[in-house]
This record gives sequence, structure tokens and C-alpha cells, in this order.
Amino acid sequence: MRVLVCGGDGFCGWPTSLYLSRQGCEVSILDNFLRRQWDTELGTQSLVPIATLSERVQRWKELTGRTIRTYIGDMTDHAFLEDVLRQERPDGVVHFAEQRSAPYSMIDRQHAVFTQVNNVVGTLNLVYAIRDIVPDCHLVKLGSMGEYGTPNIDIEEGYLKIEHNGRSDVLPYPKQPGSMYHLSKVHDSHNILFACRVWDLRATDLNQGVVYGVQTEDTSADEVLYNRFDTDEVFGTALNRFIAEAAVGQPLTVYGSGGQTRGFIQIRDTVRCIELALLHPADRGQCRVFNQFTQQFSILDLASRVANVAKELQLAVDVTHVANPRVEREEHYYKAAHTKLVDLGLTPHLLDEALLRELIQLAIRYRERIRLDKILPSVQWR
Amino acid sequence: MRVLVCGGDGFCGWPTSLYLSRQGCEVSILDNFLRRQWDTELGTQSLVPIATLSERVQRWKELTGRTIRTYIGDMTDHAFLEDVLRQERPDGVVHFAEQRSAPYSMIDRQHAVFTQVNNVVGTLNLVYAIRDIVPDCHLVKLGSMGEYGTPNIDIEEGYLKIEHNGRSDVLPYPKQPGSMYHLSKVHDSHNILFACRVWDLRATDLNQGVVYGVQTEDTSADEVLYNRFDTDEVFGTALNRFIAEAAVGQPLTVYGSGGQTRGFIQIRDTVRCIELALLHPADRGQCRVFNQFTQQFSILDLASRVANVAKELQLAVDVTHVANPRVEREEHYYKAAHTKLVDLGLTPHLLDEALLRELIQLAIRYRERIRLDKILPSVQWR
Repeated sequence: MRVLVCGGDGFCGWPTSLYLSRQGCEVSILDNFLRRQWDTELGTQSLVPIATLSERVQRWKELTGRTIRTYIGDMTDHAFLEDVLRQERPDGVVHFAEQRSAPYSMIDRQHAVFTQVNNVVGTLNLVYAIRDIVPDCHLVKLGSMGEYGTPNIDIEEGYLKIEHNGRSDVLPYPKQPGSMYHLSKVHDSHNILFACRVWDLRATDLNQGVVYGVQTEDTSADEVLYNRFDTDEVFGTALNRFIAEAAVGQPLTVYGSGGQTRGFIQIRDTVRCIELALLHPADRGQCRVFNQFTQQFSILDLASRVANVAKELQLAVDVTHVANPRVEREEHYYKAAHTKLVDLGLTPHLLDEALLRELIQLAIRYRERIRLDKILPSVQWR
Repeated sequence: MRVLVCGGDGFCGWPTSLYLSRQGCEVSILDNFLRRQWDTELGTQSLVPIATLSERVQRWKELTGRTIRTYIGDMTDHAFLEDVLRQERPDGVVHFAEQRSAPYSMIDRQHAVFTQVNNVVGTLNLVYAIRDIVPDCHLVKLGSMGEYGTPNIDIEEGYLKIEHNGRSDVLPYPKQPGSMYHLSKVHDSHNILFACRVWDLRATDLNQGVVYGVQTEDTSADEVLYNRFDTDEVFGTALNRFIAEAAVGQPLTVYGSGGQTRGFIQIRDTVRCIELALLHPADRGQCRVFNQFTQQFSILDLASRVANVAKELQLAVDVTHVANPRVEREEHYYKAAHTKLVDLGLTPHLLDEALLRELIQLAIRYRERIRLDKILPSVQWR
């Protein structure tokens, strides 16, 4: 299978590219290195030093004999994107190539507009290019569990059967996204559903939960293959923040009460989910939606787990609460379906103490690279 | 009340500006004249010749003594938009300033991307400018009934109470928009709802049906005030197409079976609905949705009505069916709520033979300006 990974230099894209390459896919990567540029903009860096993409693919070739072709450019440049599809003629395109930070999108108007235009135009260009060049190609698009928000009813996988005034229909699940970034993903989802319906494209929209962990079997094989690990307030997650705080002996900062509950998935499961979606493509005309997460946790629960492991490692950590920079419900109902990927064969790796210990030890190893002033929240939703 | 009408030179915006001015509002208009430029691009024109905006507001001043200030520029230029809000400090902004043609958005990739970027960025810039400059200002945003598509359940006004697995919530009504343009309106709706929730803005999202008619009491007062009347395939509606075809003795061309049913509203009711929304503003933090139409018709029903009136006028017209250039259900359930504007005081003008006669006679008066080659469909959805 020929697979193009858009955003293949990023946190999810890089391990996915290696995993698919090892499984025997002919993998190519499209990336514009914006993720690296945002570190320059924000004065942040991956806790784990990472090699350049050309170093990465060269080392992969040396270690495995497998070639990963690279195309450096921007998906909002449709001529570039069309050229890549014409050269590669992929069977599947995995689309990670979006601005994926909620805080980044909430910095100001300019960052909100950039996020929505970048994500929406890149995805529109991709569906048009697939339609025109490789109409049978399967689009595997990364969405977010954050598209759903926190409704007071069960979250289903993309669609909901609704009974109303004695009639019924199956309709797209109503979305209540919580940031300009999450809104961009909702826009994408509507655009892709339309493209499948009107042009008979095939797509799988993966509403991914918060990804945790860093390395996979492939990225840990060599330092040059190491994956990035973000702990800053803009691109880091709550769990990564807690791990960095624990490593430097600072209190773990929970936003608000910490009752916010979300779906989580380990990076080793992300790569397997992408493989499963590719191995079982959507039908022509079908826009399939899977909820790609394996466990639910509240933020406070995560902080407690990190604190407990940190104590075993003789790190003195407290859990503290800081004013929530976001506008979100802090106590709410949350139950989201996530059976479709399991039905296809996913065996989840669950969050355990061993992994938390490994992550904290990794953060301790690179603790001189942690900048506390980049961890505490400065971007405000209001 | 100080009201800024964005897109105030257009088909809905111009009569709305005059109507609000006559009711005593202090009206200003923001427009970039893109609607006039699209006529140049497409080789089309308003069936009724229209004056320039500066001629229009000058004549209005001569006739009524009322001043309408004008700001010529683009809402995607945030510095320009912010300047206008700082100068005007409006109590209400009526936002018509979007690319509003489904076929235009479906011409090709470039037109789709333009439509979504133009509409989404203009609206994002507006909500940020309102937040930063006039946070108490009421945003009255034109959406479309086409955002809902044709679900097999009753369409409600923006939100739907959903019971699911023994729990319930009131959620945004699930949308199934049928073109890249309608998608842009759905994106706007999500963005505006978020802005109201996070920044305590106040907004009314008016999901307007297909607008018919041409003149209002104000625009018909003088030839220089005349409103535009589009009959071409891109910016004209089905009803306008039938009227133009009748005027030149051509068969009325129904797309497909003609069972497609939509909500319709007369231009004289559009201006009143805007006034009602402004007179009864949404609360801070509230994103209110009204369905702004007064009657439902199938396309075939409309063609029959036009044909009957045309026959009384001694015009020989048949109703014919042409291949549907759109991807849409041609036979479907359709029942949409539209009581909220009536509750606020709307007394609908219903479609009658007198109006159809008037429209056909208008088209006959300007029949030398009708270009048949611009009426038949060329833009294909597939």
C-alpha cells in the first residue's frame, strides 16, 4: 500500500510514518516544518532533542533499508499538493498536517484566523486533489474528540440516531467545540462529509483523544529517530505539564477544579489505529467516523496519578489548582463511545505506572531543557 | 439606534439599509463591491439597471433628508473593519457581506476556497472587532435555511432537544449543508456560537430562506434607488429563472423532478425581520437562531405558479425538466419551524399572483438585458 503522510514530521505523524513503513507500506511524507517554526515563534522546544527530517529518514534507511520519500511544502499551496499526489498516486493519505493546539489558536485574532484558514484550506485542497487525481484514494483525516465538547448525553461515533416529533433520522452528531482550533476541525469534518457525498470520495475521520506517551518501538530504536515531547503551555498537554512539573519539583498545576474529563490514547495506539483505518478503508461515498481514544480520565485524576508515581521516585510534588485560562465546564457528564477501532482489532495500551515512571525519568534526563515560564498558562480564552 | 450594514450595497443589504434609515436608525454601509465585480467576472448583470452606491445614498438624502455614511473596503481586512467600528460604534451590526451563491462556490476549487475563506475570515474579524471595540453591540448575522439540508425530521430554529440513552440535552441542530457556500455559513454559525459563549457577545443568526421579489417601498420610490434583480444561473434563484424564462417565451427549466422543497421569504419581509431582530436584541452571551422564511414551496410548484400567471399574460410557456446540476434529494420530507420572528411581530407578505405578475412584467420591461446563455446551468456539483 502506498501511503502519503501529511504532517509526517510531527508528534503523531513521525511515529505513524515509521510504523507504516515497518509494516511494509510505501510511505512518503509531506511537511512544511511549521511545527518547528512555532517553537521558534514561542521560544519553546521539544524536551527531547529531535533530529531534522532528512536526518531521520536517512537513519531509518540505514537501520531498516526502507525508503521514506519527503516532500517539503505547504498544503495550502494547491499546485504543490497536486504535484505530490500526481507523483505518489497514494492508496491512502493520512492527514495530520494541521495547526493542532487549542491555546495557539486562542492567542489572538491573527492566530485564530491563521488556524482556521490553514486547516480548512489545506483540507479543502486535499479533497479537491484527491477528487481530481486519485479519486479512489482513502482519506484518513485526524479530527479531535474536542469537536464534541461536553454534551449532557452520550457521545457517539460521528453520527446520532435522533427521534423527533414521531420521525427519525441518523444525523451528524451535534458539535460544541471549545476553541478556534477545535472549530477548525469541525469545519473540516463538515467539508469532508460533503466531499464524500457529492464526489463519492472515501474518508475516515478519526476523532482522536489527547495523545500521551512519547516513543514507539520505532522511534526509540535510535536517538536520531526520537519523537518530540512538548511540555509548554501551548503545545503540551495537561499530562505532559504534570510530568515536567514533577521532574523539576514544582506543584502540578490543575486548571480549575480538574473535573474536566477527556478521552486519552497512547501514541503506540495512535499508530495502530491509523494502520487499522488504512487496512479497512471506507467505501466510496462513505465518510466514516471513529472515536480514537482508549480511556477517559479527569484532569485531577491524571495529576494524582503523576503525583503518586513522582513520590515513589522521591520527588516532592503537590497538586495545586490555578485559575482556568479556558472557558469550559469543570464538572460535567462524559461518556463517549469508542468501540469501532476495537472492533477492527485495536488492543489498547492502557495508562499505567510504568509508563508514567518512564515519562518522568525522561523529563528528569532532559530537565535542563524545561522552561517553567513556558509551562504556566498565559493564553486566556476570555 | 446606530446600525452598520455590512454588504449594504447588495440585494438584501440595500433595501435593509433604506428601511432601517426610514425607521429612524442612524445607518452606515460597509461594502467592497465584490457583488458588482462578480457580474464582471461572470459576464452577467442585474436585470434592473442599478445606480452606484454613491448615487444611491445621495438620492436617498435628497428624497428623505437622511444621511447614510459609506465605508468602502473588505471585512477580511481587519484594520479597516476595526476603524469602521471605532468610528461608528454601532448598537447593531447587520452582516450580509458574504459570497452568497451556492453555484459560485461550486465552480471549482478556487471559488470554493475563496468562498469559505472570505466568509469565515470576514465573520471572524467581525466578532473579534465587536469583542474588542463594541462588546455590547448586537450582531445580526445572515445564515441560510440551506445549512440544515433536508433531514427526515422536523427542522427547528437552531437548537434541538435530544433524548438519548435516558439523558437529554439541547444541542445545536445538526447541519447537512449542500454546497461549499452553505458549508461556509455552517462554519460561521459554529464560530459565532463559540464567540457568544466565550466572550459574552450577543448575536442573532438568521437562517434565511430563498428571497424573492425585487423592490420595497423604499427602493421603488426612485429609479436611482432600484434594487438589483439577478436571473443568471449563478446568482439568480429558481423563481427568478422561471420569471426570466417566461418573459422571453422559453420553457421554465426545473432542475430534476422539482420535488425539492425550500423555505421562501419576500424581500419586504427580509427588511422587517432585520428590524425585529434589532429591536429585540439577543442577551449578552446568547446566540439566538431564527428561521427567516414565511412559506415552503417545491420548485415544481413555483414553476406551475409562474406558468399560470404567464398564461394569463398571453405568454406561451411550458414547464420542462433539465438534468439537475446539483447533488440533492429531489423527493424528501421538509417541515421547518419559523415562529420566532412571527412571535416578535412579523406579518408575512405571502406569494400571490399579483407579485408574480409584477415580476414578469418587470422582466418583460428589461427583456433585452436577459441573456439565455447565462440562465441555463453550467456549474455542476459533481
